[in-house]
Amino acid sequence: MGIEQKLAQVALAPVSGVDAVAMMRLSILDWAACGIAGTTEPVAGIIRGRVLADAGREDAQVFGGGRVPARAAALANGTISHALDFDDTHFAHIGHPSVAVVPAALALAERQGAGFQDFVEAALIGVEGSIRTGVWLGRDHYEVGFHQTATAGAIGATLAAGRILQLTTDQMIAAIGIAATRASGLKSQFGTMGKPYNAGIAAETGVEAALLAQAGMTSTIAGLGGPQGLGPTHHGAAEIDAVSDFGQTWLFETISHKFHACCHGLHAMLEAVASAGLDAKDVASVTIQTHPRWMTVCNKPDPVTGLEAKFSYRQTCAMALHGVETASIDSFADATAARADLVATRQLIKVEPTTRLSEMQARVTFTLANGETRESFHDLDAKMPIDTRQAKLLRKAKGLIGDRHDPIWTAIQRNDITGFVAGLA
Amino acid sequence: MGIEQKLAQVALAPVSGVDAVAMMRLSILDWAACGIAGTTEPVAGIIRGRVLADAGREDAQVFGGGRVPARAAALANGTISHALDFDDTHFAHIGHPSVAVVPAALALAERQGAGFQDFVEAALIGVEGSIRTGVWLGRDHYEVGFHQTATAGAIGATLAAGRILQLTTDQMIAAIGIAATRASGLKSQFGTMGKPYNAGIAAETGVEAALLAQAGMTSTIAGLGGPQGLGPTHHGAAEIDAVSDFGQTWLFETISHKFHACCHGLHAMLEAVASAGLDAKDVASVTIQTHPRWMTVCNKPDPVTGLEAKFSYRQTCAMALHGVETASIDSFADATAARADLVATRQLIKVEPTTRLSEMQARVTFTLANGETRESFHDLDAKMPIDTRQAKLLRKAKGLIGDRHDPIWTAIQRNDITGFVAGLA
Repeated sequence: MGIEQKLAQVALAPVSGVDAVAMMRLSILDWAACGIAGTTEPVAGIIRGRVLADAGREDAQVFGGGRVPARAAALANGTISHALDFDDTHFAHIGHPSVAVVPAALALAERQGAGFQDFVEAALIGVEGSIRTGVWLGRDHYEVGFHQTATAGAIGATLAAGRILQLTTDQMIAAIGIAATRASGLKSQFGTMGKPYNAGIAAETGVEAALLAQAGMTSTIAGLGGPQGLGPTHHGAAEIDAVSDFGQTWLFETISHKFHACCHGLHAMLEAVASAGLDAKDVASVTIQTHPRWMTVCNKPDPVTGLEAKFSYRQTCAMALHGVETASIDSFADATAARADLVATRQLIKVEPTTRLSEMQARVTFTLANGETRESFHDLDAKMPIDTRQAKLLRKAKGLIGDRHDPIWTAIQRNDITGFVAGLA
Repeated sequence: MGIEQKLAQVALAPVSGVDAVAMMRLSILDWAACGIAGTTEPVAGIIRGRVLADAGREDAQVFGGGRVPARAAALANGTISHALDFDDTHFAHIGHPSVAVVPAALALAERQGAGFQDFVEAALIGVEGSIRTGVWLGRDHYEVGFHQTATAGAIGATLAAGRILQLTTDQMIAAIGIAATRASGLKSQFGTMGKPYNAGIAAETGVEAALLAQAGMTSTIAGLGGPQGLGPTHHGAAEIDAVSDFGQTWLFETISHKFHACCHGLHAMLEAVASAGLDAKDVASVTIQTHPRWMTVCNKPDPVTGLEAKFSYRQTCAMALHGVETASIDSFADATAARADLVATRQLIKVEPTTRLSEMQARVTFTLANGETRESFHDLDAKMPIDTRQAKLLRKAKGLIGDRHDPIWTAIQRNDITGFVAGLA
């Protein structure tokens, strides 16, 4: 069976996977919080302006309010929710699955009047399909310059969109083909507004491909793996079997969420500091051990700006010890970087590279004011109980959007799509 | 200077090139006729349905009537005008420049209230830019499976759109970057509705990239030739200098127009037959000489269907001798293939392969009823006087859309954009 047929069949079948569905609900909460917080970014204003100016049928809501065609809502919401680069990540997929898929699923769910559970299941099928397409495209695809969030994301968004539309298998295969000829997105956009836009175009492609296939548009039936398909043309490693257990096991369950609004290299350290449960006033000195790779990435010893603070072990460790919310974007202001108490504390902190830790691990050793020593270790690869993850994501959401996170989470728990959408406006 | 800067600068500068502008007007006529005739194709109904259902601000007209946002009009009109695959072709570009560029230029010209001359010049800049981008991407890009009409076409459409919007040079460079991360289109769509759709998405990308850049969206400034740009990621041959004389010489002047609604391999023969000026009743026998390559492509001796007739030397030669309009799609009906007089005439015709002719040449030898012999030769590569081309394109347009071609051509000659648009409805 070709990859297209496998993806299409599973995408239209009943969804098993209770844990994966629960995880999808958490990613939807996280996606919503990132999107609402993202509306203040300049790129959000630009893309909102584009779709609101073009207007049209009021299928679906844009972050920040206003209703536009499903295609346009997917484009705008994909872009806005990736504007802060604070959304979920899957390291095998090599990308950010939710920002490409969830906006497509939601826009069509709104358009079609689907229920919340249908939306969640479509989103799950989509993110899982995009992760598997990303694995199938492989590392060469990424290394040469393609942005899997966008390319694999477009396929995932199509599966989610096609599921909401209840396409036939043949229509879904056509939709995959249409998405394959539209899929694009380059890593050379990193550091520009083009990066979040790449997530938006993937979501847009999903909606467009599914609607066109539903309307009868024909396409190659081998858009991914066939001759001159997405894989062979885009440096994909087509020999990888990435889909044979699609629908049976869920790679999405190993999704990573960002709990701190700073460089990923600091996260293991921040988790270790949090689990130590100490306060700055009790600490005499701190030694952070980390993988050598991070020393050139996020070891600015004396950051002056908020942006520099995002790349500083010493500063973020001091922030954590002083109870400054590292999950909050606002904590990375220039004023915070200059706070006297934080500057004083960071002088007590030193950073040591060691190859005895993986890139995902950190060890933090505290010498307390009373002479005691405490050691704390964290491994980002270790499985996190879902309750812990939920609590951390709720805290992050509160840090990002304050009390607005509460009705959104309530709506997610109650399968209330109307309340959920209302919470995003 | 990077390719992006060169393209941007020339795209915003005054246009020289009187012959190129005159040729662009002919391609615009041809594009309009192909688009109007294309509205009866199933893919046209599907894409019209999509954009009319989404509706929105009424910037620009869709072939067949109705006004939609410029983005949507470009998408639909690009798709519809390529539906018959009867539009212009550039063999160095390896693609169809007008169907990707003209819809973008026209949609934004309508939106901005630009004049007809501005539209023509933007279209010319766009098609020339897309041809040069196509040459720059090169044959490897095509061979691996990319559809230059779509990929290079998206860049050309962006130049045209950005010129209409009078972007700054920096905005134009950003628009090129945005288009580069959106550009896509695979040859695996050939033979499906995905092929004309590829032209549509290129036109759509041009409008979208230019409008977003105008609104302040940032992007890589090296979207084509820089690291992880369109060229390096898409099997482009970045070492080719394709743009240094952009704006000074016009590759577009060597554009090819299709004058017959059948396989390209038959066109040299049909031109030779036309120039002989003979009628079937005067002809006793005919020998067609052609390059051996075509013998397996378009030498069906006794076609039964209209589609088979499109691949038949004997049938199309008989049609030409009986005055059946080979420029007209309608002439390739099943009933015409079965017409007794045509069947009788085609028994008098034989086809001979010879390597003494190029693939672009044909020689036709007639033995007349009175015993005389006549010989006629045609080389498609020979330069055609613009008056001859104009007459042939007007005849083609009349064959495609009947008397509707007349007000359109009048509007083109009078620089009347309102009359031109009215003619497309």
